[in-house]
Amino acid sequence: MPLLRSILRSITALLRTLFLLVIVVAILVAVRACAPEQVDDSERVAAKRDYLARIQTLAPGIVHRPNIVFVLYDDLGYGDLGYGARDSRMIATPSIDALASDGVVLSDFHSPAPVCTPARAGYLTGRLAPRAGLPNVVFPTGSRKEFFFHTLSGGGNKRLPAEEITLADLLRAAGYATGMVGKWHLGDRSPSLPNDMGFDSYYGALYSNDMEPFAFYRNREIAVPAPVDQTLMTQRYTEAAVTFIREQAGQPFFLYFAHNFPHDPLSVRAERSGRSAAGLFGDVIEEIDESIGTLVETLRETGQLENTLFIITSDNGPWYLGDAGNQRGRKGNTFEGGTRVPFIAHWPQRIAAGRTEHAMAMGTDLLPTVLELLELPPPDDRILDGKSILSVLTVGGATPHDYLYYYDGQTLFAARDQRFKYRGAAGVFYSTDQMPFGAAVPQKEWLFDLAGDARESYDTSTRYPQDLQRLRAAFEAKRASMADNPRGWK
Amino acid sequence: MPLLRSILRSITALLRTLFLLVIVVAILVAVRACAPEQVDDSERVAAKRDYLARIQTLAPGIVHRPNIVFVLYDDLGYGDLGYGARDSRMIATPSIDALASDGVVLSDFHSPAPVCTPARAGYLTGRLAPRAGLPNVVFPTGSRKEFFFHTLSGGGNKRLPAEEITLADLLRAAGYATGMVGKWHLGDRSPSLPNDMGFDSYYGALYSNDMEPFAFYRNREIAVPAPVDQTLMTQRYTEAAVTFIREQAGQPFFLYFAHNFPHDPLSVRAERSGRSAAGLFGDVIEEIDESIGTLVETLRETGQLENTLFIITSDNGPWYLGDAGNQRGRKGNTFEGGTRVPFIAHWPQRIAAGRTEHAMAMGTDLLPTVLELLELPPPDDRILDGKSILSVLTVGGATPHDYLYYYDGQTLFAARDQRFKYRGAAGVFYSTDQMPFGAAVPQKEWLFDLAGDARESYDTSTRYPQDLQRLRAAFEAKRASMADNPRGWK
Repeated sequence: MPLLRSILRSITALLRTLFLLVIVVAILVAVRACAPEQVDDSERVAAKRDYLARIQTLAPGIVHRPNIVFVLYDDLGYGDLGYGARDSRMIATPSIDALASDGVVLSDFHSPAPVCTPARAGYLTGRLAPRAGLPNVVFPTGSRKEFFFHTLSGGGNKRLPAEEITLADLLRAAGYATGMVGKWHLGDRSPSLPNDMGFDSYYGALYSNDMEPFAFYRNREIAVPAPVDQTLMTQRYTEAAVTFIREQAGQPFFLYFAHNFPHDPLSVRAERSGRSAAGLFGDVIEEIDESIGTLVETLRETGQLENTLFIITSDNGPWYLGDAGNQRGRKGNTFEGGTRVPFIAHWPQRIAAGRTEHAMAMGTDLLPTVLELLELPPPDDRILDGKSILSVLTVGGATPHDYLYYYDGQTLFAARDQRFKYRGAAGVFYSTDQMPFGAAVPQKEWLFDLAGDARESYDTSTRYPQDLQRLRAAFEAKRASMADNPRGWK
Repeated sequence: MPLLRSILRSITALLRTLFLLVIVVAILVAVRACAPEQVDDSERVAAKRDYLARIQTLAPGIVHRPNIVFVLYDDLGYGDLGYGARDSRMIATPSIDALASDGVVLSDFHSPAPVCTPARAGYLTGRLAPRAGLPNVVFPTGSRKEFFFHTLSGGGNKRLPAEEITLADLLRAAGYATGMVGKWHLGDRSPSLPNDMGFDSYYGALYSNDMEPFAFYRNREIAVPAPVDQTLMTQRYTEAAVTFIREQAGQPFFLYFAHNFPHDPLSVRAERSGRSAAGLFGDVIEEIDESIGTLVETLRETGQLENTLFIITSDNGPWYLGDAGNQRGRKGNTFEGGTRVPFIAHWPQRIAAGRTEHAMAMGTDLLPTVLELLELPPPDDRILDGKSILSVLTVGGATPHDYLYYYDGQTLFAARDQRFKYRGAAGVFYSTDQMPFGAAVPQKEWLFDLAGDARESYDTSTRYPQDLQRLRAAFEAKRASMADNPRGWK
């Protein structure tokens, strides 16, 4: 009978746990669902308007306004391109290779977050995702995915708050024509659509290619109804980008071209299938490389290549397929494979060619870099997390950062300097590739010596107690300051 | 009100799901708990006895009986040792490096499973874990861990069935003195203890160093009561191994030395702390390297080194810490990082020194290799999954396998040949390092071209449709034959 008693006890315990779970979830649902709809901060919206008006008055004094083309891949890993050390010999990327050898490669560049939405929020605002008010992936409004993966899990805002200042807002105020092609993923409703956030023109999809309904928009109207034929996606995006470039005769422009690929599910036009030694993934990357070649060719033809800052990078490491390079981790986590991504900048007039820079940098540096480039002041009512890496790009040198901070979007997981990476132990969980059914394990306090241990294998806490203390202090200070002032208002 | 209605509907749906879950779990508990205690197959036990008696009669005719020392690490990754390509320059392993340069390294050797128990079952029986009747990790009898992680999840047997023939059974019958030191993890009750399964003597712990109560046994009796001081573990094991070697004057012996480290939690003696550039993990590996040096020295002193086949490998890839090498995945999954482990064999009399062999092989090959070495017949009532790799070890050459099959323990995940690796899509899930809270995603059908893609990044199904078909057929055939005759009785 002890067996039976033990079984009964176990069942009771289980039922009790599940009952509690139900209650908790029910409360959660109620609280979440009753939380007021996002209200934009009207005071900050006014401050944004004032700042942009100020930029507009400064615009005539800007000495030099190069065009800026910013190409962002979705889920492209550190090892997926062929340039430089040529980790991947299976995928031919001659267009990117040419830009890399004629420009600068950053070997230690990180996306602001290891997943789509918060990464993009960081790239466009120069602020880490919690500051930008968008720390979690967003889903189509009203969809079941939104309810389960966002509302239930406490996702916070479902669109970029209107008071955020984007790179497009800034450049538009500075006299640029601003165009966007591709994946937005920062909210599918006004006042957070591309055309609300600084882009004169927009053509693309409002979220990931595995979300529904997946349509293409031209500005605020549906241009290709869902479901779009994704085999034609890269081609259509490229045509829209080329059209935008050709239309900007004589006017400086900013083009933000955010590919939906190689995010799963993959597809290419039939005639492109089977070309790459890396299968469909390689076919997709090779088609995008061709697209980049087309952009470069268009810039050259229109005489604008010399005066265009052309940046290529990714929003996070690879997901199911794709190559994180010789690193630990993939999309979604804060090991290097989740955030360290390819980065190439090409600008014949200013960037000394054929260099690889090892200074650590992050996607939040883009907006501050543009501010320095145009000699414009930052907004004074909010903290920017990024720092200008203009000199790193143009001539090389040390990183402007004492520390980089790794958020998975919402939670601080790690802090690093140029050598060490510290992972905090404060009640956060991370996933390992441990069991077939996954496992979330409590994070321990780890100190990786990236100089000798690029794969984050060895905790060197006992070896370098002083560096441990130093990075722990930086980590805790960042966490405290973020808790204190999450949106970073001054 | 549509919002309220939607909330209520969601809560109802959730409650319904949870209620169903409770019912299912309750039934599961009842079924599992009422399942009869493991009964060994008496007919097969008799067949085993007959086979071993037959080996005993053949023993006098064995021409040459080298000593065999088999050192198994726990959770040591492919990149954690310093030999060969010296992936890890942070940990000094001079003893192993010397054995490697004076012996043979297999660069493509796999543990039979990516977790402790099934891997060990495979190493000792020459049969994949489901065949050996022990496809899942076992826990201390009666422990809560056993109930939750084994009973509830349908773990099957909780100890190695008595009818299984181990390497120790075989070698003992062939006239060897058989000793084991270290971690057993194949059941903590008779008739499945080390002394029941072929070992004359045993000193060590019956399971992993994160399980309780963690005591050391000498044969069937507790020698050091729980909790043992793990900082002294490697030292104590080494002393027991040295004593065993010294006691076997003039008699061929088999020593199975299974370290509990570097399985988490790690510790070393205070005076060894902080020595390695790789922190505590490195300190632990360096202490084990010293232990291996001590074994080698003891063999040399007693004049037995020339005539000893010394094998070093691991039960699976690294867990939280440790370096999987330039591979995808870690302990617990069937990406290469979970199963491809270091392998070194040293035997001055027979193994041509200083070689690296790239033939694919698996831990199940050990027992068949020993059979060929001693020119003994295999048992005729059961299938062995392994094949002899004797010639690969001694002079080099091609793998004896058409295909290797990757089980996570219970489930077939992949089949490969020397170039391609196929992952099946049949309703199994695998975990990615995707989200901070882990995620199990349904496996798609993938074909990796390991020749160019060691990190398993690119599905080449569309590129190599014929290889896809061929490997899919092998995969499906294996699954069908295993379903048909899981224990492989003839």
